[in-house]
Amino acid sequence: MKKPAARFNLRKLPSRAPHELHKQETKRETARIRQDLVELQDRLYAENRQSVLIILQGMDASGKDGLIRTVFSGLNPQGVRVHSFKEPTTEELAHDFLWRVHMHAPRHGMIQVFNRSHYEDVLITRVLKLITTEEARRRFAAINAFEKLLQQAGTTVLKFYLHVSEDEQRERLQERISDPAKQWKYEAGDQDKARQWPLYRKMYEDVFRHCSPDSCPWHLVPADQNWYKAYVVAKTLRDALKELNPQYPASKLARPRE
Amino acid sequence: MKKPAARFNLRKLPSRAPHELHKQETKRETARIRQDLVELQDRLYAENRQSVLIILQGMDASGKDGLIRTVFSGLNPQGVRVHSFKEPTTEELAHDFLWRVHMHAPRHGMIQVFNRSHYEDVLITRVLKLITTEEARRRFAAINAFEKLLQQAGTTVLKFYLHVSEDEQRERLQERISDPAKQWKYEAGDQDKARQWPLYRKMYEDVFRHCSPDSCPWHLVPADQNWYKAYVVAKTLRDALKELNPQYPASKLARPRE
Repeated sequence: MKKPAARFNLRKLPSRAPHELHKQETKRETARIRQDLVELQDRLYAENRQSVLIILQGMDASGKDGLIRTVFSGLNPQGVRVHSFKEPTTEELAHDFLWRVHMHAPRHGMIQVFNRSHYEDVLITRVLKLITTEEARRRFAAINAFEKLLQQAGTTVLKFYLHVSEDEQRERLQERISDPAKQWKYEAGDQDKARQWPLYRKMYEDVFRHCSPDSCPWHLVPADQNWYKAYVVAKTLRDALKELNPQYPASKLARPRE
Repeated sequence: MKKPAARFNLRKLPSRAPHELHKQETKRETARIRQDLVELQDRLYAENRQSVLIILQGMDASGKDGLIRTVFSGLNPQGVRVHSFKEPTTEELAHDFLWRVHMHAPRHGMIQVFNRSHYEDVLITRVLKLITTEEARRRFAAINAFEKLLQQAGTTVLKFYLHVSEDEQRERLQERISDPAKQWKYEAGDQDKARQWPLYRKMYEDVFRHCSPDSCPWHLVPADQNWYKAYVVAKTLRDALKELNPQYPASKLARPRE
């Protein structure tokens, strides 16, 4: 995992785990972390004063859905919500681009996962030339102000970019054609999009340049191996929750009636 | 009507119409303006590409409700919405302060009126010492970014402060006790609040200092006389709509089927 520098090249970012890391050992470690998460999430929910927003971005077939299943399946769904952002509706397009996003911001006590997010409004919109560079700049500023607003209200914002190599991505998209359990994910445009990877990469680099302040950095996750990205995301979340250190509130029985 | 200067004193702001203005003539002019508004609003709704947000602030008994009735009653309610912000609910308090506000931002084609607004979160909250000056400063920045976001999405934001003199306000609050048609508005805290006017005034001045950029200024409206404030708000809205110049779209009959 790496924090992006002011100028940097996504092509040079590793897409695989460091060599010294042992797969089976890491998987066992992830299992331990998930145990920690169960307890920490329970305390966050009970405390009801802070929240966590996890933003997942990555190109097609970078493994966002699988990651959500792996990392969050053991948690109490009462305290965890996942929202997948699809193509905006007519009603959503009749508002500013953060309108539909803001309403899904987590309330105190909750962990909210965004499967794709407001970053699509400065990614695919630029690839398809729906907005100008100038408009993208304005949106970057709006996004930074928005995430700051959430942070000031007690929300920890964790942003993950799942980085897969082109080879790995090509292979996974091929599986969507051949594997019956994955065919439902295949979309007619997948092949066209593949041709636009270089442009997507450029737009992602621009996002990392403009929307990665020290107070709210992007985490760039090598994502060719599922076991490694699950480990990185689970660990980052666990460490953030430990830092928040949520506490069970005092029993209401002990309090005088209001 | 006056745009606030960087430093200025609310006590020195007139609360009455300029002497040269004739009441009956002005009322007739307001009636004409309301005719304009009917047509302009119809075009705004049909065009479905721009919107207007009217923010009404003022101390108790400054006449916000009456103003809404006078100015907006003739308009087609399909294209006009009024939202009154009350004391936040537990659910609302579990989010950032703009969360409940953002969801009421107008969609294209609409005129949205906020009867009180997110500005209460830097007014009454400060008078009651629920937030620090530092937090207020952060909220000012968040408000400016939020209003800019709306403007960039095609929303014209018009902010009005209804300025009544202390004498006029005292008289109106007294009416709430004696007039059967106004008694329902009386609240137990009204007298306490009156004692806090100097503090409210100070907090309003701070708002005007920090949240009145050239691109989105506050309009300070002398509000002791109902006929004058109705005129000022109606005229400001009419002029803004004229500037937007909304157009009826071409007939769908002429378009090829999609």
